[in-house]
Amino acid sequence: MAESVDLVKTGITGLDAMLYGGIPRENQVILAGGPGAGKTLLAFEFLYRNAKMGNTGIFFALEEDPKKIVHNAKSAFPKFDDIDDLIRDEKLIINGRDISEGILDKFGESNYEFGRIVTDMERLITSKNATRAVLDSSSALELIVKDPTIFRRSMWSLVANFRRLGVTSFLTSEIHSPDRSKLSFRPEHFIFDGMMVMYQSGEDIKRIRALEVIKMRGYKHSFVTAPYDVTAGGFKVLSAEGAMKD
Amino acid sequence: MAESVDLVKTGITGLDAMLYGGIPRENQVILAGGPGAGKTLLAFEFLYRNAKMGNTGIFFALEEDPKKIVHNAKSAFPKFDDIDDLIRDEKLIINGRDISEGILDKFGESNYEFGRIVTDMERLITSKNATRAVLDSSSALELIVKDPTIFRRSMWSLVANFRRLGVTSFLTSEIHSPDRSKLSFRPEHFIFDGMMVMYQSGEDIKRIRALEVIKMRGYKHSFVTAPYDVTAGGFKVLSAEGAMKD
Amino acid sequence: MAESVDLVKTGITGLDAMLYGGIPRENQVILAGGPGAGKTLLAFEFLYRNAKMGNTGIFFALEEDPKKIVHNAKSAFPKFDDIDDLIRDEKLIINGRDISEGILDKFGESNYEFGRIVTDMERLITSKNATRAVLDSSSALELIVKDPTIFRRSMWSLVANFRRLGVTSFLTSEIHSPDRSKLSFRPEHFIFDGMMVMYQSGEDIKRIRALEVIKMRGYKHSFVTAPYDVTAGGFKVLSAEGAMKD
Amino acid sequence: MAESVDLVKTGITGLDAMLYGGIPRENQVILAGGPGAGKTLLAFEFLYRNAKMGNTGIFFALEEDPKKIVHNAKSAFPKFDDIDDLIRDEKLIINGRDISEGILDKFGESNYEFGRIVTDMERLITSKNATRAVLDSSSALELIVKDPTIFRRSMWSLVANFRRLGVTSFLTSEIHSPDRSKLSFRPEHFIFDGMMVMYQSGEDIKRIRALEVIKMRGYKHSFVTAPYDVTAGGFKVLSAEGAMKD
Amino acid sequence: MAESVDLVKTGITGLDAMLYGGIPRENQVILAGGPGAGKTLLAFEFLYRNAKMGNTGIFFALEEDPKKIVHNAKSAFPKFDDIDDLIRDEKLIINGRDISEGILDKFGESNYEFGRIVTDMERLITSKNATRAVLDSSSALELIVKDPTIFRRSMWSLVANFRRLGVTSFLTSEIHSPDRSKLSFRPEHFIFDGMMVMYQSGEDIKRIRALEVIKMRGYKHSFVTAPYDVTAGGFKVLSAEGAMKD
Amino acid sequence: MAESVDLVKTGITGLDAMLYGGIPRENQVILAGGPGAGKTLLAFEFLYRNAKMGNTGIFFALEEDPKKIVHNAKSAFPKFDDIDDLIRDEKLIINGRDISEGILDKFGESNYEFGRIVTDMERLITSKNATRAVLDSSSALELIVKDPTIFRRSMWSLVANFRRLGVTSFLTSEIHSPDRSKLSFRPEHFIFDGMMVMYQSGEDIKRIRALEVIKMRGYKHSFVTAPYDVTAGGFKVLSAEGAMKD
Repeated sequence: MAESVDLVKTGITGLDAMLYGGIPRENQVILAGGPGAGKTLLAFEFLYRNAKMGNTGIFFALEEDPKKIVHNAKSAFPKFDDIDDLIRDEKLIINGRDISEGILDKFGESNYEFGRIVTDMERLITSKNATRAVLDSSSALELIVKDPTIFRRSMWSLVANFRRLGVTSFLTSEIHSPDRSKLSFRPEHFIFDGMMVMYQSGEDIKRIRALEVIKMRGYKHSFVTAPYDVTAGGFKVLSAEGAMKD
Repeated sequence: MAESVDLVKTGITGLDAMLYGGIPRENQVILAGGPGAGKTLLAFEFLYRNAKMGNTGIFFALEEDPKKIVHNAKSAFPKFDDIDDLIRDEKLIINGRDISEGILDKFGESNYEFGRIVTDMERLITSKNATRAVLDSSSALELIVKDPTIFRRSMWSLVANFRRLGVTSFLTSEIHSPDRSKLSFRPEHFIFDGMMVMYQSGEDIKRIRALEVIKMRGYKHSFVTAPYDVTAGGFKVLSAEGAMKD
Repeated sequence: MAESVDLVKTGITGLDAMLYGGIPRENQVILAGGPGAGKTLLAFEFLYRNAKMGNTGIFFALEEDPKKIVHNAKSAFPKFDDIDDLIRDEKLIINGRDISEGILDKFGESNYEFGRIVTDMERLITSKNATRAVLDSSSALELIVKDPTIFRRSMWSLVANFRRLGVTSFLTSEIHSPDRSKLSFRPEHFIFDGMMVMYQSGEDIKRIRALEVIKMRGYKHSFVTAPYDVTAGGFKVLSAEGAMKD
Repeated sequence: MAESVDLVKTGITGLDAMLYGGIPRENQVILAGGPGAGKTLLAFEFLYRNAKMGNTGIFFALEEDPKKIVHNAKSAFPKFDDIDDLIRDEKLIINGRDISEGILDKFGESNYEFGRIVTDMERLITSKNATRAVLDSSSALELIVKDPTIFRRSMWSLVANFRRLGVTSFLTSEIHSPDRSKLSFRPEHFIFDGMMVMYQSGEDIKRIRALEVIKMRGYKHSFVTAPYDVTAGGFKVLSAEGAMKD
Repeated sequence: MAESVDLVKTGITGLDAMLYGGIPRENQVILAGGPGAGKTLLAFEFLYRNAKMGNTGIFFALEEDPKKIVHNAKSAFPKFDDIDDLIRDEKLIINGRDISEGILDKFGESNYEFGRIVTDMERLITSKNATRAVLDSSSALELIVKDPTIFRRSMWSLVANFRRLGVTSFLTSEIHSPDRSKLSFRPEHFIFDGMMVMYQSGEDIKRIRALEVIKMRGYKHSFVTAPYDVTAGGFKVLSAEGAMKD
Repeated sequence: MAESVDLVKTGITGLDAMLYGGIPRENQVILAGGPGAGKTLLAFEFLYRNAKMGNTGIFFALEEDPKKIVHNAKSAFPKFDDIDDLIRDEKLIINGRDISEGILDKFGESNYEFGRIVTDMERLITSKNATRAVLDSSSALELIVKDPTIFRRSMWSLVANFRRLGVTSFLTSEIHSPDRSKLSFRPEHFIFDGMMVMYQSGEDIKRIRALEVIKMRGYKHSFVTAPYDVTAGGFKVLSAEGAMKD
């Protein structure tokens, strides 16, 4: 018997249409892009939209001060006027991981450190009954685990733990060229269940921002690269699928 | 006297036509592609189709939970409604190799570990009388054997063991660019009897998915890159050869 | 409730229009470009314009003699006839960091050295009540901290310290190709709140100089690459946004 | 006085015409190509055709089981119905070098090992009065000698030994891109007397297989890249020179 | 008050027009190009022209015999018939630095050696009251200082010393591609006050030689890439600016 | 007073016209090309033509047996029927350097070895009163001196010694792409007085062989890339300059 797919809506305009409804539950998704692509904001909106639907989500801010994350989200999305309410009600939790220790102690074996971070995350997810998460960003984790093989293994166990906890998540990840024609994959991209890339392409004077779903295990997705815009009311992904529905 | 070639059908629509009937028995074939190309699903369908023909196959899941593999296959192929039956009847065996130990112990010499894994696989193949196998993926094996020369030698002996056991197999393998024009070969690609690549090409807004047979020792194959689609009833490879036959 | 964004004007013709008013207060911005792009001059003009508005700024000259910086600025901008006054009034402070020690002692651990430099900067910023700063250039810092992971962590703590001190800053940074089509990102580019790039592009006989805002956390910005000119009266950025306003 | 060139026919349709008659006696020729180009088959046909002319040849199978080599050749060339006869008459000798020891013992100095392999080859060549040889492939030798300088030196002495023994040979070699426009040379390519490359080029949907003679010391050769086909009766190289002759 | 820029004429036809009069006094300028671009000759002509104006200049020949430098200059520029007079009058000094020791002693720390060379140069500049200098070439210095960080620091102190001595100089530097479209910058390019590049471009059968001023601190310069020719009477740079003036 | 340039004719049809008469005496010239370009043959013809003019030349065969060099030259140039006479008269000396020792002893410091080879060469040049030389090839020297800095220094002293001995020479050198558009320079290319490159270019089905003079210190040269052919009577370089003269 064919199984029905249990989908998690992102709540982002146009994106769920690209995903034919959403992300399969418990999928862990890479969200890759260059600086300025808007990875952090899109991941934030995913949690915000889900919080409003009643799904508790945790934003693990590994690189920036949680206050700055909230401040930037408010600036980018002035129409999201209930962010503070959702935070107060603990539907939206902005958690600042202080990973400085693991990073500073460069001579030690930070393998242990990574395990401890994952354990702390797990405890928070469990105690808050969270089912959505964002890790921002994978680069911060790379600073802790320098050996590429150990890093990949660590990502692997992180993905396994999040699945076990029933969490659907985004991990933001850096790419080194803003152009779609220069996309290249890194080993950790193969570990995750899904991968979406945000490009800032353009030979011309103006860069076009566009989003592509590269992979989504367990379900279908659009193969079109869709332009997107960041508006006061959130992301707008201009997918053909969305156009047909709206 | 010329020998007749003993061919193993993949059972995948259009692909056997590209292969002029199938894969020479006991050939070990690399199945390469980027994330989202569908390597795991195509390899799964190969085992599924063969299980239905009565040929026992084992899926060695080195990176993912066997349950997830089955779940994803069911989601992608809702028309394959006899997966559970085939698993129950042990025509289709999903084996989750726990290779964590070899990976975690980064200071030790994991050469031994690799040998042990191959030995375990061999034992399972023999005890189940399996003649088909899938290894998903080569990257997991790379995590165990970090020295590239030792890795190549290990792949070599794996290929030799599988041949000796009379098994016809697919090994999924990662490539770092989604585009056909950027294909480059790695040393292990030369060890295998066959090589197929799944591309997600396209300068344009929409990526085209297409499959190419690069090599198939001991038999002829199509030299055309054929578009493919993943449908509820399995892969459809739109080969010119298939078009002529169907 | 949506928060209002507190913006710091750069005072540079056309650039504030590209930034829809300015740089969010306490943002730390990378200013990248090849040799001859004018990074040092643009960063200088930012401090000069702000000094005239009454905002104290410090130029940390890590590579060149402070006198040379001032001399070059006067040569490039003959109409800035009050540079000396602003320096005398300590609204514009040109500080020459002697980082030779950290660099010369190549066998020692210069981690400590970097911390000391940041501490000295912090002391000067505090004692002068400065709210604007320029670091020229990141390459000088790279000479002190050779390990790339430690370098990234150091940049991270520098950014955190500057934010804590309420400073809005530019850090000049080198890129290895003059062309926009060859732009690639380095890990430290992701740490900063903003990134602007100055190109000298051109397949043709004449290179075009143009500026692009790649990222500006917490606020919107133009996505157009705007040509710029260096005139006796300062930079002129020919942004579409500026054209509409002026 | 000008010397006449003593040529060794390859016996392959179209190829001897490209070589204006054949390969100068005692030339050692690199046969490079990607996976699936047909290097092993072309080298096999060279020995097969020469064996039929009465010239004893030895195929040193460094990567594959000799039985598989013979089996694949029979499958590819069903019209070669006297392969077994030639093998029985020892005009065609398929020798499987077991180079596992040298490869497995990764800590030892395998320099000695390489010398021993060459010595063994030499002994076989002498005892069988062989004048033709194939080494398949150079990659296997690279596995034994990991230091690139030592590898080059080893290739050098191998070439010198084969010349001294009066042998004309092909050494198959891997290239990392299937395209002619991406051809690049490796140091060992300069050591050999000749070099031929088999491409699988094509921006288009269908790859074209074509062969180019890059170098042939001591004699002239075609500068045209000629398409080739693998037929039941052997390779067909569609050279302009061949077309004129046939 | 705006400062007037004190310019040093190069005396080379067309080049001063490109520089709007010359090079700012005490600027240290990189002169980069491939082999055969004419770097050494252009740098020589700069000293020759300045010697005739009464400005003493020293050519530090780090790679070639001073006699060869003079001989080649005479061959290239047969109309420069007063080279010997200028050398005799010590307006033009060709100094051959024997840097062999620093290079030969590869196990020692050649840091000290570099410092000694700079000290020797400084002594000669002071004793001869020289205000112009050429270092030919940076590659010779790289041979002494192999660590890239130490090399950059050494270049930095060299530039600082030359400035302190009131010298305006050219340092010749190698680039690895003859084409303008492949220009890439190295860290030391950012240390110098100016940078000029000599290209030998051309997809076509004939290479075009052309010169571009990439950077000139403290003053304006042309942004056009100007063709040049080497004639019996010296370099001719065909700048648009020169065309307008002449 | 302008000096007259003392030119050494190469004697090769069309090449002297490209060089406006020849190579400046005592220039050391790099002759670069891919495998099969004909470097060794062109260098041989240079010595052959000079021997016939009465100038003694020595061919230092570092990679191949001297007999093979002579044999190949005779095969390529059947019209050169006096090679043996010139060898017997010691106008043309083919010297096989056995550099195996330096190469085999990989643990030792082969610096000494290189010096010994140069000393041996010097002794032979002096005793035979040779004024022309060929070194075939630089790669053999690279095998002896593995450290790139030491290699460059060694090349430097070799060039200096040859100049001191009054020798005009060619050194053959390998390039890694056959195409002119991919030419890139290596540090040793800057040490030599001249550089010529032999290309085998062509996007099309047929490679075109062409020669370009990149650099020739002390004299002018053509900037055109000229096609060449290897005929029974020697090389024919189809230079525009040659066309005008003939």
